[in-house]
Amino acid sequence: MSFNTFGHALRVTTWGESHGPAIGAVVDGCPPGIALSDADIQPWLDKRRPGASRFTTQRRESDTVRILSGTFEGRTTGTPISLIIDNEDQRSKDYADVARAYRPGHADYTYDAKYGFRDWRGGGRSSARETAARVAAGAIARLIIPDVKMTAYLVELGGDPMDRDSFDSDAIEANPFHCPDPAAAKRWEQMLDDARKAGSSLGAVVECVADGVPAGWGAPVYAKLDAELAAAMTSINAAKGVEIGDGFAAARLRGEENADAMRAGPTFLSNHAGGILGGISTGQPVVVRVAFKPTSSILTPMPTIDRDGNETEIMTKGRHDPCVGIRAAPIVEAMLALVLADHKLLHRAQCG
Amino acid sequence: MSFNTFGHALRVTTWGESHGPAIGAVVDGCPPGIALSDADIQPWLDKRRPGASRFTTQRRESDTVRILSGTFEGRTTGTPISLIIDNEDQRSKDYADVARAYRPGHADYTYDAKYGFRDWRGGGRSSARETAARVAAGAIARLIIPDVKMTAYLVELGGDPMDRDSFDSDAIEANPFHCPDPAAAKRWEQMLDDARKAGSSLGAVVECVADGVPAGWGAPVYAKLDAELAAAMTSINAAKGVEIGDGFAAARLRGEENADAMRAGPTFLSNHAGGILGGISTGQPVVVRVAFKPTSSILTPMPTIDRDGNETEIMTKGRHDPCVGIRAAPIVEAMLALVLADHKLLHRAQCG
Amino acid sequence: MSFNTFGHALRVTTWGESHGPAIGAVVDGCPPGIALSDADIQPWLDKRRPGASRFTTQRRESDTVRILSGTFEGRTTGTPISLIIDNEDQRSKDYADVARAYRPGHADYTYDAKYGFRDWRGGGRSSARETAARVAAGAIARLIIPDVKMTAYLVELGGDPMDRDSFDSDAIEANPFHCPDPAAAKRWEQMLDDARKAGSSLGAVVECVADGVPAGWGAPVYAKLDAELAAAMTSINAAKGVEIGDGFAAARLRGEENADAMRAGPTFLSNHAGGILGGISTGQPVVVRVAFKPTSSILTPMPTIDRDGNETEIMTKGRHDPCVGIRAAPIVEAMLALVLADHKLLHRAQCG
Amino acid sequence: MSFNTFGHALRVTTWGESHGPAIGAVVDGCPPGIALSDADIQPWLDKRRPGASRFTTQRRESDTVRILSGTFEGRTTGTPISLIIDNEDQRSKDYADVARAYRPGHADYTYDAKYGFRDWRGGGRSSARETAARVAAGAIARLIIPDVKMTAYLVELGGDPMDRDSFDSDAIEANPFHCPDPAAAKRWEQMLDDARKAGSSLGAVVECVADGVPAGWGAPVYAKLDAELAAAMTSINAAKGVEIGDGFAAARLRGEENADAMRAGPTFLSNHAGGILGGISTGQPVVVRVAFKPTSSILTPMPTIDRDGNETEIMTKGRHDPCVGIRAAPIVEAMLALVLADHKLLHRAQCG
Repeated sequence: MSFNTFGHALRVTTWGESHGPAIGAVVDGCPPGIALSDADIQPWLDKRRPGASRFTTQRRESDTVRILSGTFEGRTTGTPISLIIDNEDQRSKDYADVARAYRPGHADYTYDAKYGFRDWRGGGRSSARETAARVAAGAIARLIIPDVKMTAYLVELGGDPMDRDSFDSDAIEANPFHCPDPAAAKRWEQMLDDARKAGSSLGAVVECVADGVPAGWGAPVYAKLDAELAAAMTSINAAKGVEIGDGFAAARLRGEENADAMRAGPTFLSNHAGGILGGISTGQPVVVRVAFKPTSSILTPMPTIDRDGNETEIMTKGRHDPCVGIRAAPIVEAMLALVLADHKLLHRAQCG
Repeated sequence: MSFNTFGHALRVTTWGESHGPAIGAVVDGCPPGIALSDADIQPWLDKRRPGASRFTTQRRESDTVRILSGTFEGRTTGTPISLIIDNEDQRSKDYADVARAYRPGHADYTYDAKYGFRDWRGGGRSSARETAARVAAGAIARLIIPDVKMTAYLVELGGDPMDRDSFDSDAIEANPFHCPDPAAAKRWEQMLDDARKAGSSLGAVVECVADGVPAGWGAPVYAKLDAELAAAMTSINAAKGVEIGDGFAAARLRGEENADAMRAGPTFLSNHAGGILGGISTGQPVVVRVAFKPTSSILTPMPTIDRDGNETEIMTKGRHDPCVGIRAAPIVEAMLALVLADHKLLHRAQCG
Repeated sequence: MSFNTFGHALRVTTWGESHGPAIGAVVDGCPPGIALSDADIQPWLDKRRPGASRFTTQRRESDTVRILSGTFEGRTTGTPISLIIDNEDQRSKDYADVARAYRPGHADYTYDAKYGFRDWRGGGRSSARETAARVAAGAIARLIIPDVKMTAYLVELGGDPMDRDSFDSDAIEANPFHCPDPAAAKRWEQMLDDARKAGSSLGAVVECVADGVPAGWGAPVYAKLDAELAAAMTSINAAKGVEIGDGFAAARLRGEENADAMRAGPTFLSNHAGGILGGISTGQPVVVRVAFKPTSSILTPMPTIDRDGNETEIMTKGRHDPCVGIRAAPIVEAMLALVLADHKLLHRAQCG
Repeated sequence: MSFNTFGHALRVTTWGESHGPAIGAVVDGCPPGIALSDADIQPWLDKRRPGASRFTTQRRESDTVRILSGTFEGRTTGTPISLIIDNEDQRSKDYADVARAYRPGHADYTYDAKYGFRDWRGGGRSSARETAARVAAGAIARLIIPDVKMTAYLVELGGDPMDRDSFDSDAIEANPFHCPDPAAAKRWEQMLDDARKAGSSLGAVVECVADGVPAGWGAPVYAKLDAELAAAMTSINAAKGVEIGDGFAAARLRGEENADAMRAGPTFLSNHAGGILGGISTGQPVVVRVAFKPTSSILTPMPTIDRDGNETEIMTKGRHDPCVGIRAAPIVEAMLALVLADHKLLHRAQCG
């Protein structure tokens, strides 16, 4: 059994491999009557698109989305919305080594272990290209929650954290790192250039905040809003950790420091909880943070084995992101939008 | 819509409030023919039971489980296994204040915001008592994966980490903190006594390792083994963060440091990945870490509002764990068992 | 994998065997704030209870339901509602033959074929006793759709149809057959007495009508309201066929006879469709009909085999309904209520 | 919430409208390593294709399927298989009347009632064109159960039943009605010509038999094999009733007539049950029968209302099947294949 569908009331099924003819998503459960055209989706794909700067893969894809179903006269009909994005720039020859041996840090070995063989072209289904379909679906989710604004940005790269006191939301779109701290972005530029030239790669931490989520979304106990967010984020390629609100730092606080006091409004005097208590939104900003490991595709040769179990070495040529975390920011936003839109509908189902 | 069911092929539905007559779980999808009696479940509940030391709540519950269905002549029949645990020690009077005002850090406000009212006795459905049902269900999951051994332990309490070099697995059951480092356990004893006497509470980090998971469990892309673990762990009360393998530390490594090299066997030269690549198990130990916030029920008065929106203060009397992370260890184990058993069955469905 | 959960937004998980300590249901997703006590459920169980007349099994069960969770101060909280019904009258000795050989028409052989062994006491999980849990859950569903009135009745017994022209809704509760035609009920009394004395059994057809369903419930294409009803009804023990509206008779009409013309209102000039078009309710009464085979438990010896494959004979002693269709009427009502309540919530999720 | 996904372990999501650019399906959960190319699917679509005889719609579609993902070097990889079929022959002008008023018997009114508006071109999502995607997905399901042979045929048309004593399986593909009785096929030809010329339409009953299903597939109690089949069949356009085995006729048998006696082997002396007992397959042929109403698209003017509620008349011009039951046969086969393949995988999950 494999699971390529995400969500409950709003459900997204994605399909496609890196080097097949296309990838896509089917979005089911979208409310009817919402204005929707390709132009509502394309800008979000453009933000994720590779090749935007020297810090992302030079693979060239226009990532042009087409809506194949589910709209009529520019509005959603309530039936499944099929989205397709053609694959354009496929250089399968880059992957000859990959066909032969397992790249450490990649899913090559595990796919073989599970399925008996694998599509080795560009990582097949495990390619980060799958996330383009998420971004496209997330664009529709945004339209279901128009009053919620999601913003993702990098707070750490290569172990170097941004300075929280220098947080400038205008800076986020002004540097290739989606970093709210211009000074950190400057440092990271140098760090990443160095890593790339050394045939290495760096990790990153992405934070995403959703403003405008009303109190009451989420559901005990296994579909807690934070549990759903944790799954959504950890399903993104290269994610290794997720935090809600203060996350691991909350484990270092005392009870009276961590519990967010309330005043009339209601307002909260702090937001250590990241906008979620008991799995249900508080009305404060929802805050999630995701750790991305360094890109496993590196030019440094690594010890590994081939399909027959023989020891060998592999280095990953081809065009890769030196830090996948950078391009993860729009994907984190999309997954947050999908979870929130789903829970808006779920809340409406049970509570009217 | 609320979601009190967990899992796909092995599904657990839990029910019950802290102060109702009982709590329970229905386990559906268990393979037939497995030897199962109350005695297979009770020891795990005993490990979780409150009142075991002065570091856990003094609420007295025998937590005696009864199997009401799904077995015949001592073996599972393949039909739903209904488990029930009676509530015994209910002092609702302790919760008079809770009925009136919202406890910061608790789900009081959010339940009211979602449902319009709430069962304020002992936290109702948001009570950690629900986790007893998980532990009972997890005991059945363990029987489905008899070759997998799960071990949970505390690696940090109140911001004080254990010393990894002093890891002694025999120590885990020898101190009330499930801590593999006896020296840390000693320090934590003092720290937690101090916090308790000060009417405060502390957070903790629990790590859990599963040995014996074969390569090939898990499923791309939204039911990745790590995504499922992240959801499972974040659904536990007071959890605020989750890591797989190196987690957030992986984001500070370089590509060549993080990618686990392979040698014939296959063996891996390291396990930064925590036993999961591309959402599928590698055959190495599965490693997950969960951050628990400090108990929100504290004797320190906190600013809050009542149901009518008026500002007031509340301190939480009653019997509470000064560090919920301690009692979370068996629950983390149970959730890990449930996810792994589920994915064993799912893998068998698709791949035979 | 086994599936003991029914529904999407309103989900019912049932558990329990005929001769275990109890049976029960967990109802998840119920809207909060609905007045609910045992007294809202018990009358429906009383209607289904065995032993009400000589035409139903003489097994004596009080079928007393208890609510174990999910309510507070007499109202639903939005959390899972656990219902339990103790088994009281268990004469396992009646089933000694059943342990040895397969009863033709029963699930004995198939359970063994699937699971390797079975709980042979009273049919175990395949016992019609499971339906008591459905009726209890259905009582809650009724409260979610208070404006919808469901009425089930027998339209045929032992191949003898009622006279549609003699339909008297007041007669339904006035005879032990839930038959709206008193003359037919009279005939059936004689027929069933004869069958029972001959150690035989008869089949029946139950019709159920739901009045007050608004237009717009249901969902294309695999969760069509009629597809969901068909599954719900066919999941009832002994059901072998289901029809919506005119059903098989519709296949004998011409297009202009079958299509229900519309007039302002909107009103329909007929209801061949049974209140559903394209899987969505029209606002007309929803009409469903279910065929029940004759009880397979008969005193007539039947050729069969034992567990070792040897040929033998079996007759089913014990206390059995000579016509399971009679007691099916309340169950059909309950399943219809569950489907409709579920789709009310689902419609609200997507369409607001 | 809408539901365009079918199945549990093998899941099919279909999308697309009659007059959009394309329709398609995503098949998730298919076992890996199965040989699959377009040529495995196309023949089944060709069987369903319109325009094959004068008894089906003259709409011309090549119904050419393309596999967009999920295979590599001619074998399934275990990842989602995306299938696309372009729409070619779209004459939207035929549907001008439909945009204005509701066609009796169609989903026009109910889609408007549910969603507030609808895609009126060719019935939009409610078009029978959606079933092409089912047939394509069903072709993959067949490969998962290579030892099971499904055969669908018409047993009644326009109220005229075939003669069971004249059953000739070779005749099924030899006449445009998939009828095993050549004499009946001859009569139906005349009947349907008459109906078509009169601007009317006829209903039909399709029977489908699956040989080679082993004992043990299916699952109590809400995913009974027959309950799943009932849902699958009733989800097909124009279906109004479904029977398993003897179906409604079983309700007219006595207990000793209906219960299929067993002999060593095991063999059964009859198959009134249609190969399913207690929701689990017996190893006998699985037999299902589906009633299809007469096509609602007829040239006879019918009273109806327009979108503003005004009374009017409508006749449905355009190219329509005079008996949708004829083209339903391959769809019934496909749905049967999907249910059986799903339950093969589900059985393997739980029982190994």
